[in-house]
Amino acid sequence: MKLDLDTTADLPVFRQLALALQTKILSGELQPGARMPAETALASENGIHRSTVREAIRSLEQQGLLYREEGKRKLFVSRPDTEELSRRLVTPLVMNGVTFEEIWEAIRALDPVAAEAAANRRNADNLAALEDNISRTRAAMDDPDALVKLDIEFHELIALAANNRVIQSLRLPISDLFYPSFQTVMTSLNASERLLTAHEKILQAIKWGDADEAKAWMIKHINDFRKGYELASLDITDPAVFPKARQA
Amino acid sequence: MKLDLDTTADLPVFRQLALALQTKILSGELQPGARMPAETALASENGIHRSTVREAIRSLEQQGLLYREEGKRKLFVSRPDTEELSRRLVTPLVMNGVTFEEIWEAIRALDPVAAEAAANRRNADNLAALEDNISRTRAAMDDPDALVKLDIEFHELIALAANNRVIQSLRLPISDLFYPSFQTVMTSLNASERLLTAHEKILQAIKWGDADEAKAWMIKHINDFRKGYELASLDITDPAVFPKARQA
Repeated sequence: MKLDLDTTADLPVFRQLALALQTKILSGELQPGARMPAETALASENGIHRSTVREAIRSLEQQGLLYREEGKRKLFVSRPDTEELSRRLVTPLVMNGVTFEEIWEAIRALDPVAAEAAANRRNADNLAALEDNISRTRAAMDDPDALVKLDIEFHELIALAANNRVIQSLRLPISDLFYPSFQTVMTSLNASERLLTAHEKILQAIKWGDADEAKAWMIKHINDFRKGYELASLDITDPAVFPKARQA
Repeated sequence: MKLDLDTTADLPVFRQLALALQTKILSGELQPGARMPAETALASENGIHRSTVREAIRSLEQQGLLYREEGKRKLFVSRPDTEELSRRLVTPLVMNGVTFEEIWEAIRALDPVAAEAAANRRNADNLAALEDNISRTRAAMDDPDALVKLDIEFHELIALAANNRVIQSLRLPISDLFYPSFQTVMTSLNASERLLTAHEKILQAIKWGDADEAKAWMIKHINDFRKGYELASLDITDPAVFPKARQA
């Protein structure tokens, strides 16, 4: 595979190569599942060092655009997993000491817009999934662990009903970081009735296609999260911790 | 380094190992810059296969928690770069065909909350940087390319003034995806005066600590983006394209 590389340019050749291959993948010329040419072939056909090819390939592997089976040399084009890539943000956010307040604020930004969009774009499947979530929530009023899981699911279903894949992806790392502490809130306070009421009001507004009402109730609900924190004597300015259930 | 692994558990051993090492890194027991034990040592001390160790290490490398210099075997602990990890989302979002509308909606969610938070948390440095951005914007009224760059900078400075690192990170991939097309809008329409007015109003509200006003003007400004699209006869439901300036 002969690529258009300029060894006299400022941009390092391995970056040019990575960019050229990335362009072929993004344009669909190289489809997910396709076998990549061998390192040696890429090096000789483009008159570059094998170590340059290796560096470009490593960068594409890190982006999830190339994949090789463990211990094998054959490389394949792959479609990066948005969900997995998004969740990788959890680690550096924790290492940088972001606080619950920063996370809470990001949820307060995304979820009301998601609720608004859900009211505008709702369909029967999304409504049925939300109904089902709420009836399971009603049955779990005395089970704080189940309620937290159902709450996470409810908010994910709202993002799904919003039909916005960007918002769906961006929420994942913040949801992962936010909820472990919410468990403490749910266990120590009697917050289940308030949670159920808010979810019911949000769903009702979405059903009626009332975007403003859906948004207003979502804002109320997320402000309640914060009050719950304070009532449970948790400090919202504490750094977030790495969720225990997460797997490397 | 002897780790607590259970070869009879359901979770694959390489995942257990990756998780154990990740925990040591996140807890600070293994600090960024520290040398990692060799593969062979990890394998023999834990009574596991070297290929298992290699798989765990690959997973941590992909998360940016381990780093090795090109062509060398020595592994070091590293702190993943939030900005770089966040920007990696651009690729799968483009490959999945997300639309400008989805991206626009995510900006409409994040930036008004950022403006609100900036009004509540402003400090002299942030205000000076925003002032400076606006005076350069005033000087660039006839230069659409410069205006787009200054607009990107303005919105990043707002997120900075909001003092919210989660919102700062989440905005990056959507800003990267959104602005290339905004260039078309700025070039074809006479949108520069409206943009300057909106930025001035937002900064004024932030200076006065008027969070509601800052938010309201940001919403207006972002709604204007969308109108600009429509006036420029661009279709907001078209899939986003990979930004040309981006490097692999």
